Amino acid sequence: MRRDHFADRLMARIRATQSQVVVGLDPRPDRLPAELRPQKGGASAAAAAGAVAAFNREVLQAVCEHAVAVKLQIAFYEQLGCAGMEAYAATVREARARDLIVIGDVKRNDIAGTAAAYAAAHLGPPAADLFGATDFAVDAVTVNPYLGSDGVAPFLQAASANGCGVFVLVKTSNPSSVELQDLDCGGRPIYEHVAALVDRWGRPHRGGSGYSLLGAVVGATFPGELARLRDLMPSTPLLVPGFGAQGGGVDDVVAAFDPAGEGAVVNSSRGIIYAWKHPAYDEEYGEARWREAVRAAAADMRRDLWQATH
Amino acid sequence: MRRDHFADRLMARIRATQSQVVVGLDPRPDRLPAELRPQKGGASAAAAAGAVAAFNREVLQAVCEHAVAVKLQIAFYEQLGCAGMEAYAATVREARARDLIVIGDVKRNDIAGTAAAYAAAHLGPPAADLFGATDFAVDAVTVNPYLGSDGVAPFLQAASANGCGVFVLVKTSNPSSVELQDLDCGGRPIYEHVAALVDRWGRPHRGGSGYSLLGAVVGATFPGELARLRDLMPSTPLLVPGFGAQGGGVDDVVAAFDPAGEGAVVNSSRGIIYAWKHPAYDEEYGEARWREAVRAAAADMRRDLWQATH
Repeated sequence: MRRDHFADRLMARIRATQSQVVVGLDPRPDRLPAELRPQKGGASAAAAAGAVAAFNREVLQAVCEHAVAVKLQIAFYEQLGCAGMEAYAATVREARARDLIVIGDVKRNDIAGTAAAYAAAHLGPPAADLFGATDFAVDAVTVNPYLGSDGVAPFLQAASANGCGVFVLVKTSNPSSVELQDLDCGGRPIYEHVAALVDRWGRPHRGGSGYSLLGAVVGATFPGELARLRDLMPSTPLLVPGFGAQGGGVDDVVAAFDPAGEGAVVNSSRGIIYAWKHPAYDEEYGEARWREAVRAAAADMRRDLWQATH
Repeated sequence: MRRDHFADRLMARIRATQSQVVVGLDPRPDRLPAELRPQKGGASAAAAAGAVAAFNREVLQAVCEHAVAVKLQIAFYEQLGCAGMEAYAATVREARARDLIVIGDVKRNDIAGTAAAYAAAHLGPPAADLFGATDFAVDAVTVNPYLGSDGVAPFLQAASANGCGVFVLVKTSNPSSVELQDLDCGGRPIYEHVAALVDRWGRPHRGGSGYSLLGAVVGATFPGELARLRDLMPSTPLLVPGFGAQGGGVDDVVAAFDPAGEGAVVNSSRGIIYAWKHPAYDEEYGEARWREAVRAAAADMRRDLWQATH
């Protein structure tokens, strides 16, 4: 289970693949291509979960050479019950077998002992735990900071022991993120206070790349804030969601990167995994050639980001 | 799936059982009584999950007449992988069969469409969703507010459709909750801003009892703040963790209740489910009679709370 430092692995894979693309695996059964889509009016959650796992397998094959990582949004698997969790575990295994870095977008949060249980679930159990399972163990997770350091520390500890990473929500990409995250506390929005905490918590956990295993989630939909947060957290890897379907473009995310084009990765979910539904790819490929559409969308995003940052 | 308004159900059950006790089902395999504890050195996660489900079944039988609800901390089930999620689903079914209100302590949070997937997973799928599973569907969930209203609204919508409830984290019971939740924003701590949002979001969702289906989590470990938050959210049911093992006592939680002794429920996990490990119950029962110890601890907490509020 012991691997190299997470940030070093992430930056090395950015260089090796010349990609900063994270493909978001957020599969909705009713949006799958017809050949895989479960039939309404008869399909069980188990059938839908099987279809999701099969879809993910094809997507992984299509995108693996263009992606630095994949991000599984666990909500879409939980929605399918126990069978959905089996599909989640199967997809994690498939992605790892393809040498992709796997991010579990789980946004877990709880107090100390319970946070440790979540960390064991999603980053691998401590060596001394003979009952732990590794079904959901990934390379990095997202974590919500509302409970403060004693909710984050157990994730840091498990990540450090297992060569894993943790991305703390700092500024999310949704419109109502302003309601709480942008409240003014002593002249600075809350998200800047969280950024300062993340920078402080992460500094003792830097690898050879200079980056910490403690990263931050910063949405692409607030580009000015992205630049400011990059400055406030100089050794923090950034995971940038909100690209593509949510409105963020290449110009909005370049500020996330360091001068070498590293230090950040950008996630696109719907824009890639359902590429054949978008006019640009539908015209060239159509649903019959959906795998090629998915591959092309990942390749195009990779090229656009790389050119803009090199 | 359609049930009465959640708050009305909760208050009616408080009156019917004369109990304000929530029993927290946070089972750790290595803390189970010897007769159920999986053997180190050989037991798989599946065996541990089976032991957890068996333990929960016994605890439910012991506490059901003394508890208004049970709260499952999902982290302890996720830690056991897919088998753990099966144990979670099995325990939810058992608790419902005993007419207990079931709270999933999941602290989920995400942006709109993803929050809707979590809501479907944990509060039941929308009627139009033919692929949804009900494995993890409970009566109420806990939700983290950091993403703002468009992360909470999908839970409210699902709860309203299904007779369920939602408890938003306002002030958590852990020491480091002060780091973020107590930051001063314009003369008020952040948690009071969150309380104001919860009060506003919940008002349109009040039932016949006057209480909303939108509740709040407020830790027992900050008693002064509990009284203040009760005032700020007069129609919000409170879920109060931190009682017992975390340090909160009866005097610390009385401020959570309205004059009728309703409007709040108090959770104890370790103090009840591992009662036989505490000197007070160990002396009388010991591990051999652990079921009676669990029952007595629930009965004592029920009596103490009821007397202090009536």
